[in-house]
Amino acid sequence: MNKLLVIKIGGNIIDDAHKLSAFLEAFSAIPGRKILVHGGGKLATRMAEQLGIPQQMVDGRRITDAETLKIVTMVYAGYINKNIVAQLQSRQCNAIGVCGADGNAIQGHKRTGGDIDYGFAGDIDRVDPGFFDNLLSRGLSVVVAPITHDNKGQLPNTNADTIAQELAVAMSAAHDTSLVYGFEKNGVLMNAADDNTAITRIDPASYQRLKADRTIFAGMIPKLDNAFAALDKGVKKVIIGKAENLHALIAGHSGTLIINQHE
Amino acid sequence: MNKLLVIKIGGNIIDDAHKLSAFLEAFSAIPGRKILVHGGGKLATRMAEQLGIPQQMVDGRRITDAETLKIVTMVYAGYINKNIVAQLQSRQCNAIGVCGADGNAIQGHKRTGGDIDYGFAGDIDRVDPGFFDNLLSRGLSVVVAPITHDNKGQLPNTNADTIAQELAVAMSAAHDTSLVYGFEKNGVLMNAADDNTAITRIDPASYQRLKADRTIFAGMIPKLDNAFAALDKGVKKVIIGKAENLHALIAGHSGTLIINQHE
Repeated sequence: MNKLLVIKIGGNIIDDAHKLSAFLEAFSAIPGRKILVHGGGKLATRMAEQLGIPQQMVDGRRITDAETLKIVTMVYAGYINKNIVAQLQSRQCNAIGVCGADGNAIQGHKRTGGDIDYGFAGDIDRVDPGFFDNLLSRGLSVVVAPITHDNKGQLPNTNADTIAQELAVAMSAAHDTSLVYGFEKNGVLMNAADDNTAITRIDPASYQRLKADRTIFAGMIPKLDNAFAALDKGVKKVIIGKAENLHALIAGHSGTLIINQHE
Repeated sequence: MNKLLVIKIGGNIIDDAHKLSAFLEAFSAIPGRKILVHGGGKLATRMAEQLGIPQQMVDGRRITDAETLKIVTMVYAGYINKNIVAQLQSRQCNAIGVCGADGNAIQGHKRTGGDIDYGFAGDIDRVDPGFFDNLLSRGLSVVVAPITHDNKGQLPNTNADTIAQELAVAMSAAHDTSLVYGFEKNGVLMNAADDNTAITRIDPASYQRLKADRTIFAGMIPKLDNAFAALDKGVKKVIIGKAENLHALIAGHSGTLIINQHE
């Protein structure tokens, strides 16, 4: 079974040209099959503001109206995605950038739950692992923008963490898959205020203990629930930490390793 | 040898949502291998203006500065390309959108000829037919944005006519390739003022006569020179006409057919 790395990076890397460049240098040097899922960063919001399109946030989620969606598609699938691909090419890493519409790779739908119309924010219906497998088998690394398609001509923007998770799960049937979540901290922390206290390894039993004694709380709980859900569906391991330390994360010298069994 | 259609559409289709939709309906219905190369239309210029980025034109060519290039990449490779792909998916035409950076498909470089620095406007150095062949062989139609990459991390925007021509030539080694140039007129006209006077067929001998008697003049000469250059390099036929009449163009009932030999 081929090994596969699915790596997600967010705004803290994308919005910082120096960090992005260093990350892509490290990414290029990794041998074997790899997929990079990127979030959107702040450029879309800044452009929408400059163009006079009002922005609405509810519970930290952007409400995407049709005008904003245009900007989001441009910035995520156009500017960010193609600049990452061009930078990888310049480092002799042959990459291809896609969104969910390309090759019918990732289908999603507009979210309309509860009282709030989230506009075009999307949930995922289906991932086609065969599409990614073909590209990877040709030696291409795949760069995925956080945009799906609904098969009706719309392009819902979709949470990059969710895309990375669903993609890793879909690829697990035919790959020994590791999922790396880059975020702004060194990992899951024993003391949320001290970035030097990353927990090395969490399994289901220690997760229960860490929740019971409130070491893990608030926003980390859904993150870890999602990680364990991915492991339950076939992903081999999940690593959470700083994407700046990519090689150390993969080697197990940085970040938090989340696994389903004791070793 | 597989048949292949390479079809180029420009701003007169891209900037008109109704025409674009009708064109994509017709494109979706064509069986077999097909590549769509799209130009940029007016959206990039309009956005650059809205964002307060000054635009410079020299001899009808846009001078692309770094700020404008950001917008061009966003609009061409992001908004236009992904919306075309999403619309094709909604019509059960499985398509993938790419720019030249994707898969190292089309390499180009910044143009700096003569007295004028054209900024990032690009000329083409190399097309990789194997990249396109793999996608086509998987049943995917390929949608190409007019952006190349220079292997140094830059994304020069590049004339869509030139991309279509170089792509058709590169694919001809392994395909029986027809190149369709959609433009705003019914074909090469006997009387430039009357759109009902399209010349049905032009070969090298009749081209010499039509130039000698000044039926063909000005901007049509480089267009036809490029068409004959493509034929000399292996393209089977070139068709010039209205992309709105796509099926009639392909069937030979509309537009001007340009071929290299008498039949």
